[in-house]
Amino acid sequence: MPSSPVMTVSELGEFGLIDAIRSVFQTNADVLVGSGDDAAQLAAAGSVLVTTDLMVDGRHFRRDWSSAADVGHKVAAANLADIAAMGGVATGLVIGLAAPGDTPVAWVEELSQGIAAEVAEVGASVVGGDMTESDTLVLAVTALGRVAGAPVLRSGARPADVVAVAGRLGWAAAGLAVLGRGFRSPRVVVEAHRRPNPPYAAGPQAQQAGATALIDVSDGLLADLGHVARASGVAIDIDSSSFELAEPLLAVGSALGVDPMEFCLTGGDDHALAATYPPGVPLPAGWRRIGVVGAGEHVTVDGAQHEGSTGHRHFG
Amino acid sequence: MPSSPVMTVSELGEFGLIDAIRSVFQTNADVLVGSGDDAAQLAAAGSVLVTTDLMVDGRHFRRDWSSAADVGHKVAAANLADIAAMGGVATGLVIGLAAPGDTPVAWVEELSQGIAAEVAEVGASVVGGDMTESDTLVLAVTALGRVAGAPVLRSGARPADVVAVAGRLGWAAAGLAVLGRGFRSPRVVVEAHRRPNPPYAAGPQAQQAGATALIDVSDGLLADLGHVARASGVAIDIDSSSFELAEPLLAVGSALGVDPMEFCLTGGDDHALAATYPPGVPLPAGWRRIGVVGAGEHVTVDGAQHEGSTGHRHFG
Repeated sequence: MPSSPVMTVSELGEFGLIDAIRSVFQTNADVLVGSGDDAAQLAAAGSVLVTTDLMVDGRHFRRDWSSAADVGHKVAAANLADIAAMGGVATGLVIGLAAPGDTPVAWVEELSQGIAAEVAEVGASVVGGDMTESDTLVLAVTALGRVAGAPVLRSGARPADVVAVAGRLGWAAAGLAVLGRGFRSPRVVVEAHRRPNPPYAAGPQAQQAGATALIDVSDGLLADLGHVARASGVAIDIDSSSFELAEPLLAVGSALGVDPMEFCLTGGDDHALAATYPPGVPLPAGWRRIGVVGAGEHVTVDGAQHEGSTGHRHFG
Repeated sequence: MPSSPVMTVSELGEFGLIDAIRSVFQTNADVLVGSGDDAAQLAAAGSVLVTTDLMVDGRHFRRDWSSAADVGHKVAAANLADIAAMGGVATGLVIGLAAPGDTPVAWVEELSQGIAAEVAEVGASVVGGDMTESDTLVLAVTALGRVAGAPVLRSGARPADVVAVAGRLGWAAAGLAVLGRGFRSPRVVVEAHRRPNPPYAAGPQAQQAGATALIDVSDGLLADLGHVARASGVAIDIDSSSFELAEPLLAVGSALGVDPMEFCLTGGDDHALAATYPPGVPLPAGWRRIGVVGAGEHVTVDGAQHEGSTGHRHFG
């Protein structure tokens, strides 16, 4: 093996790389067979939730804007939030990494540490993965989880239900807007773009409280409530006066000359949760009312269709 | 949307693409919640097996050598074989597709049909996925499965055990060698490269028969038996006279001037299964004895170390 100031994954090889990162990942009581065999085995009582997400270098993250650990937090959070958005708790993840041969081993180690730290927040474990060479760096994460009782789908919203959200909205989008203009502050929104802080516990809490529909806000609030409206066959109206715009969003809006409300309505990467609750159900802690369900099959803001983009598109 | 003789994924967009392929995938009784929500939900009694694999365009397949349907069969087979190699049966898969925007929609539809057909062979379902744009086409497949009782690991082989294999060895490698020289025949080996035919049922049969170790031959027989030898702390000796070289392998060996035994010992992509059985245990149908387990921690052929490559490396 040639000596090099920066050891690359190509120099170390697949098995050396696996050895290097395996120790980063801890296992929990759900792991019956961990990584190192043809498959892992996780405890599962009755059913298992499963969701998968891809992140592509230069599209979902930029290595000059986010550290490897940031990227690890972000890709894990996207999957863990999807499990929470069923009312579930993640138990295990498998990670696929396709990376150029000149990717530094240290970058992969830091990525793994970021994933491990985010996964530890919900008590889950990384139980396996696959690594291979690719001109484009692509991360593929699949999360498994459990749910106590029936999962909360997108299709259960009913007219007169209350619409509520948990977690931050617009912070990551404001951070991305700042980075896109070459700035690095306000630091809190840049950090929110780099490492989302999804309200994981709010998912199971909504499920226990009787939420009728639940979704992860990954494409933007209006776009994702649109998914709920279509799946449930209902209309959703958002009350813009219910949004308390945080000071950093006001500051970014003012600095960039944009309406900060746009960040809240169309920004995705915070992985907030949105839910509908039957009228009269007390909202669990951390949930705030933002609108109401009616008849129809569309999403409005203060009774009117929203002008402009509603969120992120993955192709085109 | 611009009219075009070949509709691309970029023109159709993510949601249109999902609509186009969703009907390709059938669901089975294990699917409690299918695709279209934040996560899918699969039945799981006690535990769930999980494995993930990446395939990269130009490295694991070439679009000029394999049809989209071939690639679908291949990527599904790699994962389904990993579940079989635990003694399990696959129940559900999730698929990640990162693809250039100019990828034809028809290619993705045919890919999906190939995946669906391979998955149907074992009675499993595709229950979700993610699609996004990428300069490099990368497929990320995760399979979930069940096992009746304890899974068979790589670590259970004991001295005096019998080494056996099920399924074809070397056919896919011979096909790849043929394609690499610009030929298209013998057709049976080229087809074996394009669409492996793993002996899925042989995995659960080995588990029920009391196999002590079990592995999917994906890196090459010697390399994968090396994994068993290390995990179990045993030596494995292969008896080359136990291999009956099929006529197409002899023909390719003769035409290309290579020893066809090399295809069997170091070729991976057939996804044969290799196992160890306690001495005296009758081998299930489809399994053939190829060697014996002894003391040590290495793999030999006819008592001697094998010269040359032992199989595939993913980096470097």
